[in-house]
Parts: sequence; C-alpha cells; structure tokens
Amino acid sequence: MKLAILPTLRSPSELRGLDEAQLDSLAAEIRECIISTVAKTGGHLGSSLGVVEVTLALHRVLESPRDRIVWDTGHQAYAHKLLTGRFAEFGTLRQLGGLGGFPRRQESEHDVFDGGHAGTGLSIAQGLATARDMRHSMERIAVVVGDAALISGLSMEALNDIGHRQTQLLIVLNDNAMSISPTVGAFSQYFSTLKLSSAWKQSKTAYDRVVESLPVVGAPALKLSRRIRRMVVNFAQPGQLFEDLGITYLGVIPGHNRRGLEHIFRAALDVPGPVIVHVRTRKGRGYRPAERDQIGFHGAALPPMPEMETGLPTPEPHGTGHAAQAAAPHATLSAAAQARKDSAVPQPGNSDDAPVEPSGTGNGNGNGDGGSADMGTPSDASRAASAKRPPNYTHHFAVELIDLAREDRRIVAVTAGMPTGTGLHLFEAEFPDRFIDVGIAEQHAVALSAGMALAGERPVVALYSTFLQRAFDQEVHDVCQNDLPVVIAVDRAGLVGEDGTSHQGMFTIPSQMMLPHMVIASPKDEQELRSMVRTAFAQEHPFALHYPRDPGFGVPVVEPKVLPVGIGEVLREGRQIVIVGFGPIVERGRQAADLLEAEGWSVGLVNARFAKPLDRQLILDAARGKTLLVTLEESVVTGGFGAGVLALVEDARLSDPAYRDVAVRIIGIPAEIFVEHGSVDKLRQLLRLDAAGIAEQIRETLVRLRAVPGGTGLPAAPAVPATSRSRVRTD
Amino acid sequence: MKLAILPTLRSPSELRGLDEAQLDSLAAEIRECIISTVAKTGGHLGSSLGVVEVTLALHRVLESPRDRIVWDTGHQAYAHKLLTGRFAEFGTLRQLGGLGGFPRRQESEHDVFDGGHAGTGLSIAQGLATARDMRHSMERIAVVVGDAALISGLSMEALNDIGHRQTQLLIVLNDNAMSISPTVGAFSQYFSTLKLSSAWKQSKTAYDRVVESLPVVGAPALKLSRRIRRMVVNFAQPGQLFEDLGITYLGVIPGHNRRGLEHIFRAALDVPGPVIVHVRTRKGRGYRPAERDQIGFHGAALPPMPEMETGLPTPEPHGTGHAAQAAAPHATLSAAAQARKDSAVPQPGNSDDAPVEPSGTGNGNGNGDGGSADMGTPSDASRAASAKRPPNYTHHFAVELIDLAREDRRIVAVTAGMPTGTGLHLFEAEFPDRFIDVGIAEQHAVALSAGMALAGERPVVALYSTFLQRAFDQEVHDVCQNDLPVVIAVDRAGLVGEDGTSHQGMFTIPSQMMLPHMVIASPKDEQELRSMVRTAFAQEHPFALHYPRDPGFGVPVVEPKVLPVGIGEVLREGRQIVIVGFGPIVERGRQAADLLEAEGWSVGLVNARFAKPLDRQLILDAARGKTLLVTLEESVVTGGFGAGVLALVEDARLSDPAYRDVAVRIIGIPAEIFVEHGSVDKLRQLLRLDAAGIAEQIRETLVRLRAVPGGTGLPAAPAVPATSRSRVRTD
Repeated sequence: MKLAILPTLRSPSELRGLDEAQLDSLAAEIRECIISTVAKTGGHLGSSLGVVEVTLALHRVLESPRDRIVWDTGHQAYAHKLLTGRFAEFGTLRQLGGLGGFPRRQESEHDVFDGGHAGTGLSIAQGLATARDMRHSMERIAVVVGDAALISGLSMEALNDIGHRQTQLLIVLNDNAMSISPTVGAFSQYFSTLKLSSAWKQSKTAYDRVVESLPVVGAPALKLSRRIRRMVVNFAQPGQLFEDLGITYLGVIPGHNRRGLEHIFRAALDVPGPVIVHVRTRKGRGYRPAERDQIGFHGAALPPMPEMETGLPTPEPHGTGHAAQAAAPHATLSAAAQARKDSAVPQPGNSDDAPVEPSGTGNGNGNGDGGSADMGTPSDASRAASAKRPPNYTHHFAVELIDLAREDRRIVAVTAGMPTGTGLHLFEAEFPDRFIDVGIAEQHAVALSAGMALAGERPVVALYSTFLQRAFDQEVHDVCQNDLPVVIAVDRAGLVGEDGTSHQGMFTIPSQMMLPHMVIASPKDEQELRSMVRTAFAQEHPFALHYPRDPGFGVPVVEPKVLPVGIGEVLREGRQIVIVGFGPIVERGRQAADLLEAEGWSVGLVNARFAKPLDRQLILDAARGKTLLVTLEESVVTGGFGAGVLALVEDARLSDPAYRDVAVRIIGIPAEIFVEHGSVDKLRQLLRLDAAGIAEQIRETLVRLRAVPGGTGLPAAPAVPATSRSRVRTD
Repeated sequence: MKLAILPTLRSPSELRGLDEAQLDSLAAEIRECIISTVAKTGGHLGSSLGVVEVTLALHRVLESPRDRIVWDTGHQAYAHKLLTGRFAEFGTLRQLGGLGGFPRRQESEHDVFDGGHAGTGLSIAQGLATARDMRHSMERIAVVVGDAALISGLSMEALNDIGHRQTQLLIVLNDNAMSISPTVGAFSQYFSTLKLSSAWKQSKTAYDRVVESLPVVGAPALKLSRRIRRMVVNFAQPGQLFEDLGITYLGVIPGHNRRGLEHIFRAALDVPGPVIVHVRTRKGRGYRPAERDQIGFHGAALPPMPEMETGLPTPEPHGTGHAAQAAAPHATLSAAAQARKDSAVPQPGNSDDAPVEPSGTGNGNGNGDGGSADMGTPSDASRAASAKRPPNYTHHFAVELIDLAREDRRIVAVTAGMPTGTGLHLFEAEFPDRFIDVGIAEQHAVALSAGMALAGERPVVALYSTFLQRAFDQEVHDVCQNDLPVVIAVDRAGLVGEDGTSHQGMFTIPSQMMLPHMVIASPKDEQELRSMVRTAFAQEHPFALHYPRDPGFGVPVVEPKVLPVGIGEVLREGRQIVIVGFGPIVERGRQAADLLEAEGWSVGLVNARFAKPLDRQLILDAARGKTLLVTLEESVVTGGFGAGVLALVEDARLSDPAYRDVAVRIIGIPAEIFVEHGSVDKLRQLLRLDAAGIAEQIRETLVRLRAVPGGTGLPAAPAVPATSRSRVRTD
C-alpha cells in the first residue's frame, strides 16, 4: 500500500478537510505505518491499532493543542503521534534519540503529559479541567483510558472527584477484549456484563443507526443531553455504576466506526458535567495475524509483513532466537518455550499490552560481556547471544519459586496485572489456587500480601520496579511496620530500555533503604538468583529481591542454597582498588577490573549480595588499606547501595583513621536525570555503566586522587592546597 | 458512675456470659472510661465512642483471637482495647511506654495488625481471608472501615478484588455523620443518598423490627441469605453499587442497637461470599457535649468531666492556653482563634477525627528551648509556653499562602481529607473556588495538582508527611518526571508524638532526595517558613516544603522574602566543629553548640535551608579545616539530608585531601526503628534529638575521634591500629 495521505499531514487540523474516503484510507495507512514500524522497533502494537478510529475522531472533533487529549498509560498514542507531525520521525520509535513510546511534551505541543504508568490519565485530565474552570477558559479536555487502568485505585479516586465536582470532561473508556490474561476484578466483570448486555449483542447495527441519527448541532445542549441519555443509555441500561457516581454514561459504542464515534464525541462534549463514553475496541484491529491468532501473535512476535510500499525495509524474520538453547534441568516447560514466553510474551495489565520486542535488539541482552572462569563461562553464550539467549532472570525466579512452592505449601504468589511479565503465569499453571492477580492495583497487591503473611502464609508479590513505586506506603506501613515475611520480587530493576523515562527501575532501592526490617538483595548472576529465592523464604523479614530485565549470563547450573542474610563474597583480591557491586552489574565490575589491571592497577572485587543489611565486616576488611573503594549499582546513586557503603565507611573513619585514606566513589545512574528510551546496551554505554564506562569513571577518580598504579596500595602524594589546614602527608 | 463490669473482664469471650442489662451497663462504662481517659491523654474520641455497640456486637458474635477483627485506620479500637484485657493500662493511652492509640500486635493477641493509615483494612482482611481459604481453615474475618476511608484508592482496589474472588468476609461500613468537614466525593454522595433513602428516613423502628425478627440460626445458609436480601436489601433498595461489584449489601443498619447489630452480623456471616453491612453510627455517641455542639466540642477540647467514680483524677480545665497570644499582623482571623483552630481542631479525614489533644502535654510544644538574640527572643515566649503558645507552622503556612494567593491568582490549594489539619480551611474560607479537598485520596491529590500545573496554575498540595507516602509514585512519575511547579507542603514532618509508629514523618525526606528536579526545603523557624512559602512559588520546579507539627518559637515577625534556592546561611562561626542543620532542629543545634562551647569547643552553625539542592559551596567552606561536621535532621538518618552532605564531602575529598580530616557525623532518627508513641518532647529526649542529646551524641563522636577541645581545629593524634596501612599522623 502506498502511503498517500499520512506523509502529507502537518497538523491534526488538516483532518477536518478530508472527505470520508480519504479518512478511511488514512486509517488504513496509519495501521500500515504502525505495523511496519513496530516490526522494526518493537513497541505496543495492539493498543495502538485498537484506537486508530478513536484517535481520528478525537482529533477531528477537538482542536488540539488548544483542546487537550490525555492518553492514559500513553502506549495508545502511536496514531496520535502520526497525526501530530511526527510521521517522518516515526521510524525512530523507542530508539535512543528518537521518538518515545509514550507521549512526551518535548516532542510536540499536542502531547499533554509525559507518562507511562497506568491510571494517571483521569487525575491529570481533571487537573487540566479544573485549571480551565478556575480561569474560565473554554478549552475542551478528553482523556482516553483503558478498562484495565480504570480499576487502579488512582483512577477510582479520580472518578470519585470527577463525579463529585461535576467537571466538564470527556472520558473515553477504551475497552478491548483481546487481552491474553483477562483483566481481573469485580469492576471488570461489571464491564463484561455491560458488553454482553442484550442491547450490545443484538444491535450492533441498530446502535450504529441510532448513533448516526443523532443531531450534531442545533438542539440546545441540555435537551440534546437528555435525548442522548434517553436514546442511548436507556436503550441498553448499562453504566448505572458511573451514573451513581454522577458521571453521564454513554455506551457501549462500537470503537471502529469513526463517523459514529465523532457523532457521540460531539454529543458528549455538549452534555453538562463529566461524560464517559464506553467504547468497545478490538486490540490489534486491522492486523489480521493479530486478530486471528492472539497467542501466536503475542508470543512469536511479528512474522514478516506483507509487501508494503512504505519505503521501509522488510523486517527480519523473527522469533527464532529463543529456540535453540538447552533446557535448564529444573525447568517446568522446555527452556525454549519458556524463553519465548518470558522474553517475548507481552503481558496485559500495566501497559495493557507490553511492547512487542523486535529480534536482534537489546531486550536487555546483556552488555556484550561474558564471564570469567570463576563465574562460569558466559562468554561463549554471549558471543552467540544473537542466536542463543540464556533464560532471563524472570524465568529463573519463576522456576525456582515453583520448585520451592512444591516443598512449602505456605507460598502464595501475587502480582498486579503482570502475570506473564513476572513469569508467574508458570506458577499459576502449577498452583492455580495459590496464585492471585489483582489487576493494576499494586497497593492492594502488597497490602494483601501483608495480610496473608499475618495469617502465616509466605506470600511473594512480584512487580516491576517502576510499578512498585505505587505501593511505597504499603511497604512502609503494612509490610515493614509489621515486620512481615513478605517477599517482594522486584523485576525489571535497573535499566529497562525502550520504554524510557517512566519505566526505568532506578528509584526503588533508595525508596527501600530507609525502611526498618527490610532486607534488600540482588544476585550477581541468574544462578545466585535461585539461591536468593530460597534465602528469601528461609528468613522471617520483609525481603526485596531485585533482578533485571536482562537475560542471564548463561553461567553453569549450580545447586541453589540458602545464603546467610547480610553476607557478601570476595570474588577477587586486590591491593589498590576494591570494587563492591550490588546485583548483576558485578560482572561488569569484573570486566572493568580486568581493564584496569591491564593498566597496572591491582583491583579487588566484592559481590555485596545485600544492600541491606550490608556485610559491614567484609566491606570494611576489603576497604582497609586501599586507595579507592568503588561501589556499583544500576540504580540512581542518591541514597542507594553506594550511599549505604559510604555511611558505613564514614562511621569506621570516626574510630579508625586508616579508613580516611580510602576514598569512596559511588557509581550508578547519575542523580537528577530521568533516563531516556533506547536499548539497554546503548543506555549503559551512554551512562558509562558498561564495563568500559565503569573503567573510565574509575580512571577519572584515580586522576582526581592523583593515584598511580603499582600495587602499593598507597596513593601518590597529593598536592595540598595552600589554604588547607591538613597536615602534610608523609607517604 | 461506678465501673462495675469493665474492670472484671479478662477476655472478650466473657461478653457472651453477660445478660442484656449488663451489656447495656457495660456500653455506658466503656464510654465513661474512654471519655475520662482521653480527657487526660488525648486521643480519638468521636470514632471510638461511635463504635461501642459495633465492638460489643462483633466480640459477642465472633470469637477473637481465633476469629479476626481488623480495624481500618485503627483509631476506632479503644472499646476493642478495653474489652481485650487492657482496661488496667488504659490510662497510659498514647503515652510513652503505654498503650498505643492504634491496634498493636505486641499489646494483645486480639490486635491483628499495627496500623494507622486509612484504607488498609480491606486489603489486610482480604489477605487474612485468602490465607484461611488456602489452608481450608474456618476462622471468620471481619473488618470495620469508615466511610471516608472507603473512598481511598486502596480500599477501592480491595473491594474490586473481594467482589471478584467472592471471599467470605464481613465488612462493616461504619458510616457516621458527625464530620465537621463533610466527607467529599461522589461515592460519599452516593452513601448520603442511601442514608436519606425513604426507607431509612421513615422506618428506623420498622427496620429494628425487621432486623430483630431475623432467624439467627436454623435456616440453611443460602435460604437465609436470600431471605435477608429480600427482607433487608429489597426493603430499601440501596447498595446497588456494592451489589454490582458482587458484594452482598445489608443496610442501612442503626449502629447503636447492639442486639440488632448482633442479629445482622450473625446473619451476614452465614451469607456466602463477601457481605458489607452498612452501619449508621453517631460519632461521639454518648458524650452529650460532643453530640450537642460539634464545633465547640472539637475545637475547645474536652471541658471538665462530670464527676465520675473511676478513681481517675479529674482532668484539668482545658482550652485556655491558646487565647492569650498576640495576633500576628497578617492574620486573617485573630491569632487566638486561629491558634485554637490550628492546634486543637481535629480534622476529619485521614483519621476520621484527629486526636483530641489534652492541655499541658506535648502537642509538639517545642523542647523547652528558646532562641538566642540573633534568632529573636523566643525564650520569653517559651518560658511562658504553657500559658502562651506561639502559632504553629501550619498556621504560618496557611496565612502566608493566603497572602500570596491574593497576589497570584494562579495559586490553588489541594488537600486529601486534611483541610483543618493543614490550615487550608482558612484558605478555603477566603478562596472557596480555589480550594479542593479530594478526600482520603493522596494519590489523586498529587496527580491532580500535576494536571493543574500542566495547565499553568500554581497548585500547592498540603498533606501530612506520613500520608504523602501514599503518593510516592505520583511525585516521581507525574510531578518530577514532568518537572512541574507543584508545591508539596509536607506538614507534620518529623516526630508527631502520640500517634506513634504509623504517623511519624520520618521517611519522606529520603523518599524525595533521589527525585530529579525536586527542591526540598525546611525552615529554621516559623518566620523563615513564610519566606519559603514565597520562595516555593517564585521558582518553577517541584518544591517540597517540610515543616513540623510543632508550635513556632515565637520569633519576631519579619517581612517574608523570596530566598535563593539552594542557598543556606551561616548562623555562627566556629573553628573545630560545624553543625549543619535542616529544619527547626537547627535551633536545638544552636543550644547544643552552646553546651559544647561551654566545654571549650569552638562550634559553628549552618542553617542549610535546602536538603536539595544543597548549598555545596557554603557547606564545603564551613567544613574546611574542621575536625567534625555534624548534620542534624528530624528524619531517619538513612538517605536523607545528612547522607547528601556526606556524599558532597566525600566527593570533595577525592580532589582535596584536606577534607579527609573533616569527619562527618549524621544525627537524626536512627535507622531500623519505627518510633513509638509518646509526647514529642519525650521522644526527642529518648532519641537524643533534644539539645542535650545532640550535644551528647557529638561528644561521643569527639571521643571516637580522640579530639580535644581547644579551638585549634586539629584533632588529637589518634592511635593508629597496628594493622593500618595509614601513615602516621604528624599533627
């Protein structure tokens, strides 16, 4: 298909000059463009395809940027991006320096809000509308929110406020039915009832006729609103829940009839107060492989596209990378099937559908690093990484948890709309009665786990690091205040890549470091993760286990064992420098140590294992006599693991001046930035958190210290500033 | 009244042996005991009086501790405490070492959960019930939740899960109508509709008859449940919202008819699946002054009790302390009236009713400290503190905000169920159209503010430090990611006293230190607070302004001015030690400095003003050449202000060895504890955060450093451990 119209559009206002036939063609062009781009870049395919008509209708009815369109969660906004002057750049989607996968204010005046977490849209829109009403301006505000996001506590809080204050606001409930894991919860069942109401089932065409017969302008607003309610609401009798909250309900509306949507949106905008338009869409609409075969489509990523005249290269064949590796001996499913599921299966829920990942790009595919002999031989595996990718941490977590759950009947697994992404769908398959998915409700997931722990169970709640932010108070107040043995599996800890600023797992460690009773652990490799899963259930306190989105290193399988809490390990001795790492970044620390040793430095390496409690003795012993202690973590440097080590060393310095000669350098994600989108590899390079970057940062520190290599452990005599009161050094 | 029955009860099981007359007497005794105790100790009077019959009925129908009763928010649990073996200790309520104001597991096996934040109860109860069902045990679970807490996002998430999974659970909705600030929101309006339904209005007695005619046992459960629904639900036709969620609704039930409640609870426990019993209670029930005069009762605290034969001393006259001070020139209301409102008016919302504070006890009444001449003369004021208490920080915040809002029309004030507690009721009185109370919905309050800031307004959202924990993700994702000029007024920062572990404001600073773009400020006194309010609105970034529950020092009024962000001030020069404080603790640092100077040390003092960005130059200049840099903050030491200073100094040490001789000691609330209840003064003493304690901690550090006083700025030569590689010091 030739893209004839899309490339010519400079502004959404031009949509109002197109005729029906052009608009129909445009919808098809948008779908073609999204499909072909996502095949290359990865991204959220289903949701964006589902709202093409909604997007066209909103942009024809509203006048953005004067009027404001808020996209909750933000991953539905691809069509919006294409229609707001970003067609030419669309091929850079989710790439470093390119367009982001979510609305971004710096990209366009049509983007209202930088977001990515589900459930914020209603509050943001209510804020925009409140501001408008306070200054008596006239812009119209619309917000598009998915059915899964609507049950988040934040959305419910916003609905409560919107209904109470009767804010003039158009809420489009984008309700799609293509989720692999069905959205859960009583609210969702309620929506399903609406969808299955006789009116909806019997009268798809009747509905269309009613909708299209609505007068568009002319009738007084109030009278019109009454007519709409009589004709549409009373026709189907659904939505009483919203009506009870004071929000006019219009639905269920077919979501792929653009003309009908325009009519409804225009009418809804004339109704006084808040209106919810319940739109039924089909995820992946217009992409036949997706519509036909949901599982295959989601699981195997995109097959080659039909020939398109887009000028874009044909995407490479896909989904072959995961099949060739050896099955881990303990795997429930074959490792091949498993890896496919774990690394490629999008999970509905927090992002409705998770991004499709293209082949060959990062997906957290390590850092081109291997392992040394004492850590196994991942080098081989990583050299062949593009063909054989070891199972990821998520996989090992899930498999080990299942093993353990066979022995310990008290183990219950909880997640919040991320069953596949956290690997817990495997747990569910074996222990359906001991698995709970509460939907997009992180607060409840954690508090529920606290309740189960109170009653003697051993709950594990698995969430992505960035989404755990929603449950901070529940960690403090429910779990830690009560010192309950809740295991918090913090998946996607560290850099996550293409999802960008809203999704990096970089704030969770500092948010936990100050919590009494909390243990914070992270493994150096996927085999140590298995031991840490066992460790978490062998102790009696809150236990946060952080692991990345990365594939494993492919280190040899070892028998997992319970580790002593708060005890780290020395991986290498050295005389001048010691690197103390937390999590899989330890391996990059080892490579950096190799680079520095090649330059004459003597470098030790410690795997901390625990950020809290720290292995005080081990770290102090390792630091003693060194010129420099370097801490490594893939998390913001402020208030995290390194800060804990620094506080430890500073305390030792009070009693033992020898430690004053050990400089501490904290290396991690720099403070005061949100990390942009791009592959994890590229981001690590950019942030100097790959091996070369770490070595470079250490070198710079050594220059500041005026240290010289040589293995004496003593720094060169630094110049003493004239103003310094310090005594002259004698060494 | 003679307490005849209450003192004899050892266990709630004994309630089942009492006859009707005894139970009626017992209810009266419970009320007497609560009223007389709270008059002395302070506490949550209204809610606890409101649920006396609910508590009796639950404890007669259920068999605690085998069955579990969860008290959401926890402040309704006084009657529960009295009935579960804690009568003898009840006089120690909320005092250091005494009974806590919320359920506490260490006090009794009948307390399920240590809590205090609204909205957690449903999730905790659902967790208990889930665990029960997984192990097929038979205990019954009940949870009592207030109408205000029910609209929190967390509660809605829990209801969604409960309805979906059809958990066997008894939910008692404690709906009282005595709030001063009416509970807000569409859900609340919906409840009001229920309350005002014709059935409720016409048939209070008919209802009682229906309820009491219910068969208690005998009929098969299912048939019974149908009967109940037919007889009770269909009678009034309310509660469809809950029914839509799959939760059987019974209500509205009169909340002070114990027999009726017992019937309903028994019946409800036999209904399969979750049941919500909507109980209408009267806050303060049984205490005539409270029932008669809500405002006066709340505002003026408790008048002298009628004579009681409880053996307890008659409480002192009350409410006279606030009236005598001079009105601040800028006050909207008289300072007297203002102080009364601000310091004594409980606020409904997050704790339904805030604690009543007795006279003469802490209420954050400073530390017996005054001020030096260069800080004004608060000594005079504080010497007479028991008679004249200066207006608190909350008051100054509100008044300054109102002043500023007269000049800047963009200012909008938001809170989450704490209009009086945050002083924003004064703002509302002057700018009703620019004030929004969203109810117990901190997440929405912050995200809503982000939305308004996006649209060009200048929102300020005022929350208590501990409740802001609920909105952590909104700070990260909505406010900071979008770098929006939202002012977050963090009230009750630091120790709050008698509310204990769940309410101390000790985790918020570390939770904000790592957030890009966020400014974190706290004033040294109430006049500087006024300047900081102006500063917050004169800059363009997220701005967290922390201030305590304390009264001000009474320093002279100064003209507020915009301060440069990230700039501190030197309050005193010194040669050996420099104390750098953040917030009003600076004054205690000054007093500690006085104590140390009297011992021969030369001590400087810096008011940091900003924890982020730090005044790097000022702090480094002040540290240079010193033996010891001490940081002070009334917040947990982990990852907070002091940690930021340490990281700054450590970085300076990399380039300038002179700083290696400056030891850094972080003083604040110790890590790894939740701070118990007790007066703020006593807690500060206990934690060694009063002036004497700070001086003592510094002395201990100096001993560790082997420093000697004398003002040379050089420490005494420390002994060098034999194993140390350090060069021998020459000084």
